[in-house]
Amino acid sequence: MEQYFVNQTFTTNLVTIDDTEIFKHVVTVLRHKVSDQIYFVDKLKELYLATIQEIDKDNKTIKFELVKSDKPSTELPVEVTVACSLSKKDKVEWITQKATELGATKLIFFNSQYSIMHWKQNVVEKKLARLQEIAKNAAQQSKRRIIPEVIYLSDLSKLIGDNSDLKFIAYEESAKKGESSLLVRSLDKESAKSIIGVFGPEGGFSPKEVDLLNEHNYLSVGLGPRIMRAETAPMYFLSVLSYNYELSSK
Amino acid sequence: MEQYFVNQTFTTNLVTIDDTEIFKHVVTVLRHKVSDQIYFVDKLKELYLATIQEIDKDNKTIKFELVKSDKPSTELPVEVTVACSLSKKDKVEWITQKATELGATKLIFFNSQYSIMHWKQNVVEKKLARLQEIAKNAAQQSKRRIIPEVIYLSDLSKLIGDNSDLKFIAYEESAKKGESSLLVRSLDKESAKSIIGVFGPEGGFSPKEVDLLNEHNYLSVGLGPRIMRAETAPMYFLSVLSYNYELSSK
Repeated sequence: MEQYFVNQTFTTNLVTIDDTEIFKHVVTVLRHKVSDQIYFVDKLKELYLATIQEIDKDNKTIKFELVKSDKPSTELPVEVTVACSLSKKDKVEWITQKATELGATKLIFFNSQYSIMHWKQNVVEKKLARLQEIAKNAAQQSKRRIIPEVIYLSDLSKLIGDNSDLKFIAYEESAKKGESSLLVRSLDKESAKSIIGVFGPEGGFSPKEVDLLNEHNYLSVGLGPRIMRAETAPMYFLSVLSYNYELSSK
Repeated sequence: MEQYFVNQTFTTNLVTIDDTEIFKHVVTVLRHKVSDQIYFVDKLKELYLATIQEIDKDNKTIKFELVKSDKPSTELPVEVTVACSLSKKDKVEWITQKATELGATKLIFFNSQYSIMHWKQNVVEKKLARLQEIAKNAAQQSKRRIIPEVIYLSDLSKLIGDNSDLKFIAYEESAKKGESSLLVRSLDKESAKSIIGVFGPEGGFSPKEVDLLNEHNYLSVGLGPRIMRAETAPMYFLSVLSYNYELSSK
């Protein structure tokens, strides 16, 4: 059963939705009829089972009866920010989709010294809007309760302002030196409410960039012995956080 | 420094490589000169540091001096097979590339009841050759010691013959019921030398298919509360195995 985010807070058990995009998808694409059911997530991140009462094709509105769902949340118990150096369009879009499926709370794309792409200031808004739309669709498909926010930073140095409890930088040179315990040890402490992981471009970070982040409490961690592409490492990181926080032996 | 697989066993410290693909990449694309260095992995999975001695442009051969490398292996300490239901061409190729980066030993693509693609018998060989090439390139890029083998099974039922120590099927219905401990508990035993994970198509497995695999010692496991796309779940699985077997708190 599909799920849609609505930009409103539900306060009654009958609601008329006038979002033309939802109308198109529900009525035109999926051909739902009266009494069919879908899910809505409202602005308060509450999940509702919604039963179609009336379809008004002239005004493109649908009237639903709502029942609050008691399904458990699908959100990670920690807020995870994934910050990636700018890359080619398809990779940035791909990271946005996959990081959303894997539970990221926030996505940051930033310029770094060896970034292979740069966004001119006049395209940033359009690029972010497109990525935000990809995040919304992926969040609906993976049944998230929130849509991750997608942000752009013109320079890696702006990451030093991040105030996550645990801050990591995936650093190939650490992995090459056999560093393989810092991530596990840090996560084992289990008190973190928020985590950020920073991932470099194909060409890696400059030593200066790593030094800067290290000075601001980012820990350089290895993610295993194999060289991962720039877009693969953040997926590894998110998968591992889910394993650590959502799967357990209990 | 780049790495190439060669289909021979090195027995001397001087070798002439007549692989035209390697010649093209080393000399034409990367414009290496005498005394430049690259890595080779030979048929015995040994890594060699190779220094260019002579480039013969007429015969397209390169003479190298070899020194066996003592770099630690980049292979997972368990053999991991990832078996995925057939999907669209770009997804199958994508799974092959990413699963190779993430350390899979073997990749199986199989037909299942709700597979959205099917391979006609006369295209199987060509498809596998293409995927094997993708696996080789990804293995070289991620500095693997082996190239994962890519296999096709015409029917999911053929998976019952797999003799891995631990056998998993990623089952959405298990995740929906809140199953979140079986994977961790199974991995905690730590005696497995080989593991297989089976992943369904977008439409999932039929209950009959799950029953069949369950009867043959495949454990239905949940991979967290979010719905992942067909190509994302195997990446989650491989990342988690790396975390479990390659990163540690020691």
